[in-house]
Amino acid sequence: MENVAPFELTQEYLERIREAIEEKNEVFIRKSLVNVHHEDVSALLEEFNAEQSKFVLELLDKEIASDIIGGLDEDTRAKFLAVFDPKEIAEYIEEIETDDAADILNDLPVKIREEVIANIQNPEKASYIIELLRYDEDCAGGLMAKELIKANVNWNVVECIAEIRRQAEDVEKIYSVYVVDNEDRLLGRVSLKEIILAKANAKIADIYNSEVISVFTYQREEEIADLMQKYDLESAPVINVQRKLVGRITVDDIIDVITEMADEERKLMAGISEDVEVDDSVWVLSRARLPWLVIGLMGGLTGAKFIGVFEDDLLKVASLAFFIPLIIATGGNVGIQSSALVVQSLASIPVFDSSIWQKFIKTIFVAILNGIVLSGLVYTFVFLSYDSTLAFIVGCALFTVVILASLLGTVIPLILNKLGFNPALASGPFITTTIDLIGLAVYFVVAHLLYNF
Amino acid sequence: MENVAPFELTQEYLERIREAIEEKNEVFIRKSLVNVHHEDVSALLEEFNAEQSKFVLELLDKEIASDIIGGLDEDTRAKFLAVFDPKEIAEYIEEIETDDAADILNDLPVKIREEVIANIQNPEKASYIIELLRYDEDCAGGLMAKELIKANVNWNVVECIAEIRRQAEDVEKIYSVYVVDNEDRLLGRVSLKEIILAKANAKIADIYNSEVISVFTYQREEEIADLMQKYDLESAPVINVQRKLVGRITVDDIIDVITEMADEERKLMAGISEDVEVDDSVWVLSRARLPWLVIGLMGGLTGAKFIGVFEDDLLKVASLAFFIPLIIATGGNVGIQSSALVVQSLASIPVFDSSIWQKFIKTIFVAILNGIVLSGLVYTFVFLSYDSTLAFIVGCALFTVVILASLLGTVIPLILNKLGFNPALASGPFITTTIDLIGLAVYFVVAHLLYNF
Repeated sequence: MENVAPFELTQEYLERIREAIEEKNEVFIRKSLVNVHHEDVSALLEEFNAEQSKFVLELLDKEIASDIIGGLDEDTRAKFLAVFDPKEIAEYIEEIETDDAADILNDLPVKIREEVIANIQNPEKASYIIELLRYDEDCAGGLMAKELIKANVNWNVVECIAEIRRQAEDVEKIYSVYVVDNEDRLLGRVSLKEIILAKANAKIADIYNSEVISVFTYQREEEIADLMQKYDLESAPVINVQRKLVGRITVDDIIDVITEMADEERKLMAGISEDVEVDDSVWVLSRARLPWLVIGLMGGLTGAKFIGVFEDDLLKVASLAFFIPLIIATGGNVGIQSSALVVQSLASIPVFDSSIWQKFIKTIFVAILNGIVLSGLVYTFVFLSYDSTLAFIVGCALFTVVILASLLGTVIPLILNKLGFNPALASGPFITTTIDLIGLAVYFVVAHLLYNF
Repeated sequence: MENVAPFELTQEYLERIREAIEEKNEVFIRKSLVNVHHEDVSALLEEFNAEQSKFVLELLDKEIASDIIGGLDEDTRAKFLAVFDPKEIAEYIEEIETDDAADILNDLPVKIREEVIANIQNPEKASYIIELLRYDEDCAGGLMAKELIKANVNWNVVECIAEIRRQAEDVEKIYSVYVVDNEDRLLGRVSLKEIILAKANAKIADIYNSEVISVFTYQREEEIADLMQKYDLESAPVINVQRKLVGRITVDDIIDVITEMADEERKLMAGISEDVEVDDSVWVLSRARLPWLVIGLMGGLTGAKFIGVFEDDLLKVASLAFFIPLIIATGGNVGIQSSALVVQSLASIPVFDSSIWQKFIKTIFVAILNGIVLSGLVYTFVFLSYDSTLAFIVGCALFTVVILASLLGTVIPLILNKLGFNPALASGPFITTTIDLIGLAVYFVVAHLLYNF
């Protein structure tokens, strides 16, 4: 059995390759890498510096080396391509599908990018890449590749197969053949299965399926991910405003979009403001974490000033201070729960919007129910352990905080979403800091009123 | 142009269909649904009750109706199938691919499930479904479908195409033909592209690719999702321990796994303990939210008891209470950031584990850097607004809390992961509640020591 099992890069293997590089043992390196998937070689090269990696790549077949470069992490690749001259980069770029080529070029300094493009030998490829560079990276135009198989509706199956043969090298995975009219406007698609099963002289016009789900170049990546997921598509044709077929998005790119969206949401919920990883430097990691921590700190200092207003109450009844953590922690927890539920409902395309008021009323009911349970528990506990006035104060304040936190947790992500921000921002330190302050205000005002009543 | 644009279900359209159902206007319903994608009809039916939906489904072609049932949300489907008798369910099940069929059957009460299986006419299908029901839903066996195209290595291309033709109705999307030996052991694969380009008399043995990435029936879904994402696979063959080909997993199922994982993580981070959606009832939503809120509440009450120990200190220096929110909020924020970074690093398969100690030392450096910045800011502010002793206490306590919260936020998810829990649990109320208490302890102990020095 020769199937390439998920390859395990061991520390030992890494060391052997490292030695081989130092000794310039070309035979050994070529031999060790011959049956390794290019994605695994990319992972391996992440462990070496740019010069070492260049040495390895130059031993390999140009096409494989290009795939390996395509699989590198963006940061590594940037460091990495710095040791190549534009002509060398162009040679690799020619072997890579246009979408990945454009992504790589997008990360290069403008001057080098221009030089690389000037060095691309295949004029069609160069013009394709220049076209793709025009698009925003987060829309269909930025995600699509120019490589696809296109058949004129007037062809027959034999002509279509000839086209597949002609393009076979460029288009790694075909999925469907897209059917266009004489003006290149998308009419439909034929799956490879249908082509295999059709008679050789069958006309494309008779076998193609006009029910094809296409996307416009300007559609956002989140929207495309939703569509492709909903309709279980493994590829989607991209059309421009004239409905001409201009490219194709494949499911592997969409999976990356979905993963990036989840990553981004996690960072927003945790209050991390840059796209960092544990592998980054201490300095980068600190810088990504400090902004939200400082904002939280300002919230805390504002809270301190606010509590200061009630210093006299505290000096009379120190036990008031005991419940500060309880009030603000519960407020924070309720707020995050509410906003996470809203973020979740925003993440899936709503089919029928139950009216915003309906949602609101439900939110209030859930808040009241939770508020009654929690303040009931707290009232009982404080009544038994301290006294009834304090129990009443803490219970009332907690109930109010639960209601307010639910409402804010629901409304803030909706507002952020309307303003074009990622609503998950509301599930982060943003909401806890806001609610901390509101919770403190409610608690001390209630206490002050009741003690001075 | 007839391409099925992403269909928009308007409220108006919904009302028209609703009226048509009431009036039993079969012609209108059939006509309105003729060009609508089955996924959109599923979304439409979510708005009707089971009886109404049954009426609509029975007007449609059995195959389309089956796809529509397959696309329903699990909860809706359960309510829905309750109005069908087992024989009717069996008729739909026969039209659905085996993986989805097994998922549907898994949600039915055991007695009905048995009756449905007994009513399936196609004995091969029934035995496939029974086989799939044996597997845990979260592993490759539970994700795979039995539908695939298999070619014996001794065949030629013509025989292979005959097999594709024979199975064309059962296997909706083919992607690759899997090549097996006489004992059904997986040898490799041939893509449809290669079949189209090969000569009719070419032997499969000569054209197949032995570098196929397969998974074992027992592999976990997260692992499979990682593999298929890493190697950009649109399908993966599933083999049993004897390396026999037993099924196939397609990328649409993997996208669902990735989305579910992200959903689950969001819920854990927000402290929501059940798989709920905003559409669920007030009672279900409250029940999902209360457990973590009550745990947070207990943390708060413990905190109250703890602060109570220092009542005398508070009665002397009420301003001590001012900084309670600041200390615990910062601790919580730092803890969540740390755990989110660890969760992220656990989510991607590590290639080379940089030693655990290396990570730890880096965590400490980041914590020290953040701690210095934050406590420096706080010291300055408190020094200017209050007094130097208080500034020193708050600064010291904050620094200690930042360090401890970083360490706990790093260690807790690692421990949870080792114990087999989802590490994202550590980014939820779990970590904030723990760190609240530790923060309070540090703060009051430092204050008590310094004031009584």
